[in-house]
Amino acid sequence: MVDLFAAHARLLESAVAAARGRGFWAAFPENPKAYPEGGAAEAKAAFAALRGHPLELATGDDAPLVGAEVSPFGAALGVTYRARTVDDLIARAEKAGAGWAAASIAQRTGIALEILGRLNAASFLIAEAVEHTTGQAGPMAFQAGGPHAQDRGLEAVAYAYEEMSRVPGAVLWEKPQGRSAIRLDKDFHVVPRGIGLVIGCATFPTWNSYPALFADLVTGNAVIVKPHPAAILPLALTLRIAREVLSEEGFDPDVVQLAPDTPEAPIAKELATHPAVGIVDFTGSSEFGGWLRENAKDRLVFTEEAGVNTIVVASTAAFGPMCQNIAFSLSLYSGQMCTAPQVIFVPAGGIETEAGHKSFEEVATGIAAAIDALLSEPARAAAVLGAIQNPATLARIDQARSLGRIVRDSAALKVEGARTATPLLLAVDAADEAAYLEERFGPIAFVVAVADAADGVARATRAAREKGAITAALYSTDEAEIARAVPAYARAGVPLSVNLTGGIYVNQSAAFSDYHVSGANPAGNACLTDAAFVAGRFRVVCVRRPAAA
Amino acid sequence: MVDLFAAHARLLESAVAAARGRGFWAAFPENPKAYPEGGAAEAKAAFAALRGHPLELATGDDAPLVGAEVSPFGAALGVTYRARTVDDLIARAEKAGAGWAAASIAQRTGIALEILGRLNAASFLIAEAVEHTTGQAGPMAFQAGGPHAQDRGLEAVAYAYEEMSRVPGAVLWEKPQGRSAIRLDKDFHVVPRGIGLVIGCATFPTWNSYPALFADLVTGNAVIVKPHPAAILPLALTLRIAREVLSEEGFDPDVVQLAPDTPEAPIAKELATHPAVGIVDFTGSSEFGGWLRENAKDRLVFTEEAGVNTIVVASTAAFGPMCQNIAFSLSLYSGQMCTAPQVIFVPAGGIETEAGHKSFEEVATGIAAAIDALLSEPARAAAVLGAIQNPATLARIDQARSLGRIVRDSAALKVEGARTATPLLLAVDAADEAAYLEERFGPIAFVVAVADAADGVARATRAAREKGAITAALYSTDEAEIARAVPAYARAGVPLSVNLTGGIYVNQSAAFSDYHVSGANPAGNACLTDAAFVAGRFRVVCVRRPAAA
Repeated sequence: MVDLFAAHARLLESAVAAARGRGFWAAFPENPKAYPEGGAAEAKAAFAALRGHPLELATGDDAPLVGAEVSPFGAALGVTYRARTVDDLIARAEKAGAGWAAASIAQRTGIALEILGRLNAASFLIAEAVEHTTGQAGPMAFQAGGPHAQDRGLEAVAYAYEEMSRVPGAVLWEKPQGRSAIRLDKDFHVVPRGIGLVIGCATFPTWNSYPALFADLVTGNAVIVKPHPAAILPLALTLRIAREVLSEEGFDPDVVQLAPDTPEAPIAKELATHPAVGIVDFTGSSEFGGWLRENAKDRLVFTEEAGVNTIVVASTAAFGPMCQNIAFSLSLYSGQMCTAPQVIFVPAGGIETEAGHKSFEEVATGIAAAIDALLSEPARAAAVLGAIQNPATLARIDQARSLGRIVRDSAALKVEGARTATPLLLAVDAADEAAYLEERFGPIAFVVAVADAADGVARATRAAREKGAITAALYSTDEAEIARAVPAYARAGVPLSVNLTGGIYVNQSAAFSDYHVSGANPAGNACLTDAAFVAGRFRVVCVRRPAAA
Repeated sequence: MVDLFAAHARLLESAVAAARGRGFWAAFPENPKAYPEGGAAEAKAAFAALRGHPLELATGDDAPLVGAEVSPFGAALGVTYRARTVDDLIARAEKAGAGWAAASIAQRTGIALEILGRLNAASFLIAEAVEHTTGQAGPMAFQAGGPHAQDRGLEAVAYAYEEMSRVPGAVLWEKPQGRSAIRLDKDFHVVPRGIGLVIGCATFPTWNSYPALFADLVTGNAVIVKPHPAAILPLALTLRIAREVLSEEGFDPDVVQLAPDTPEAPIAKELATHPAVGIVDFTGSSEFGGWLRENAKDRLVFTEEAGVNTIVVASTAAFGPMCQNIAFSLSLYSGQMCTAPQVIFVPAGGIETEAGHKSFEEVATGIAAAIDALLSEPARAAAVLGAIQNPATLARIDQARSLGRIVRDSAALKVEGARTATPLLLAVDAADEAAYLEERFGPIAFVVAVADAADGVARATRAAREKGAITAALYSTDEAEIARAVPAYARAGVPLSVNLTGGIYVNQSAAFSDYHVSGANPAGNACLTDAAFVAGRFRVVCVRRPAAA
């Protein structure tokens, strides 16, 4: 049998170094051209073959079949999955978990790295699954659903491995006592916390689940993955690969289990409060996140919930590129990223730019015009916007039209069968907090007139503290103003992007460098990935006895 | 001004290395003879001078005075303390906390190390305070209340410093993009979680509070210390020193505040649920620990609660030394340590020893006789037992007498004015779980007849899983039996001591080596000290912007 830890040792070493350095690094190339030719076409065929059939993760499983995924681009997927009862899932996790807990850290780490490698090889197929469940356009589904998600998973492996490695396996404890010494042999055992429950979301089923899945696995916990009913397939394919590797390495594949459910009979609450579950990771609504934080106590609970992301436009030396940058951030995946901005604070009296003074109205229409330009080509528009994952988002756009003065209206793309919408941009006054300070998920954004830049920063950071925020941006040519703003954003626990133009956007969060969600405001208590994300997933138990003389 | 970080850099380096190696290491000598001559006498005088007066931590404070500590060795202390309102405490913590959060990691760490050094120099005085609040005998009050507590605090500083140090201050992120690159300057800000609340206990006010106090401080959180009403003075003296150092270094001394209360008007619940409090550390009853875990949600909550510690006597090659070792563990500080054993499982059919077979009865009476021998000298008895901290413990001993057959009765020592009790040892059957599987805090222990060694291990590990346990011990000459037992104890999350005889006891938990409380069973969710104890006390916020070309 191949020693998987040795086989992947260099990858792990690089990942640990990258996680520590937090400069740019990626293990898995984001460019599809870096992958074998023909992979995309093969994946399309493989995806077509999956449609309309049960996806079996275990032989002889006769649990009832569930699954009603419908592509935001049109057709129902027709894939179904075995839905086991909570008791069955837990019993299998406990049984499989005993052997997994007894595996060495190196064994578990090697297996996790092997799974990541095979997931990478399956990136095109997983991208198809992500595209046709989330509505992400193809290029994003590949990058975010494939290599970027795998990098986030690898990052969690690196952190967890490093934290566990800091616990010595065995030491001689020798305490001087007068002329002699007391000598004890001590063995330190890394033990898992309990079953890990990972609750996936509908928009980034792999990117947001892999960190928890891999952190739990490497630290010795059996894992139950409860996907969103609208995005089961990407995680089912993920677990099919994980179970294959586990089986090949002699472990019970039920170390990882899929727990699909239906909107009519949800099981997340029952799972999250089962006494055998020790860790819950959740990405999704503040409502359910809040329920978990209230009810899943005595467990480690990691959440990424919702927030109101803001931009403050104070001044700029690149008005056009700024508007283009903001336009792209608002448009990308139709504003369905947890990192997408929703509020753009602009001084009511306008701003200074390299091309002279621009009024509030000129800033608002400048952003609107940049959105129009970005989406003027139908093919590019489709590639940027993707589709709307949830029909409720279209209804939300309709309702939002009355919340302010429409600067740019939302419209559907002319794409047959797909559910699409371009960004809605509204102008409101700073006092209209009821309009713009609620999270309005989807392509809905507000240009908000504030007294001045300082007022904008004060409102942006207060919103982050009170409503939560995952990203924030600031445009300013005044270094003193930036320096004053930085500590306010830091106190509000929201990462800040300053003066972004060109090919980098506030929405983007890079594995191994950006700490995604700070855990320091209501947008979530978890951070991808820091030591706190992994350190509590295992515990240390010491066995000590007198050392032989 | 002295650079405190530089001044203490070698100490920190050694502590970090020790925390990683987890062999024997101590920064602060436990032997009183290692301290300046006359220190003990001076401390007695200083302590006498404190009695009967208010202890002022701030000038001009006119908050009402509280405090009714009574020495378990006799007299009331007569020391009083300013009791501020919760709102006042929080407002001051927020004000002082802003400046503290803005201090550099090195500044905060240097100050924490300086405080620890001065606490060490004050060990004799703090020992007086510990002795006359907890009832610990003088030698233990010095060691556990002084250098051992300081080592635990230093350990937390080392862990917190190391975790924070892993976050780079600033990096250049350079992502290759075609022929050019996207370049971002990223600054990573370590930000505190929120105000830290440390709730002290009556038996080890410094040892159990210092890890949280120092972990909170170093990670940038202002700290409110709410001592047990029966043991305020040790923490008041601690904070007096901490506030002195903070002031000298130009910080608002309210970075650390004392929040004394009374049994009639307790404030812990109000403090723990105040929105500004981000971290709660608690040592004490399972009842209040459970309340905190239920109600202080959305905060980091670290608890050390209660459990039932067990010993399994399967066989031994050193019957006398084993009995002596157990006798000492039962007697030390009158069984009032969270690490003291309560249950001794012995096969009903007896055990094999180097001196042949010993019946169940012979094992029980062997331990009883060893207790008698240990406590036969009045001076030694007083030095081992100390006094009973809480009158309720005496009542508990009375009630316990009817729970089984008395093998050895508890009795008071003949010490004028002191509240004392020697260990009560009862024999019961394994079925009498209601008797021996409830925590009965104090010098109360049960010898429990089990079917055989395996039955004992099964019961001991089940008790740990279900009731919680902080320590466990096993005596066995059968290596295969030990090897089978180890994974069961590891799964139960309880550290195991095997075949201890001589000068090392199951009660002892050494800083930098033993992980005190695993966090993996109901005895507590915290561990002193692992990465999980410190990593969530701070968060990381990134500020990124395009790098200059």
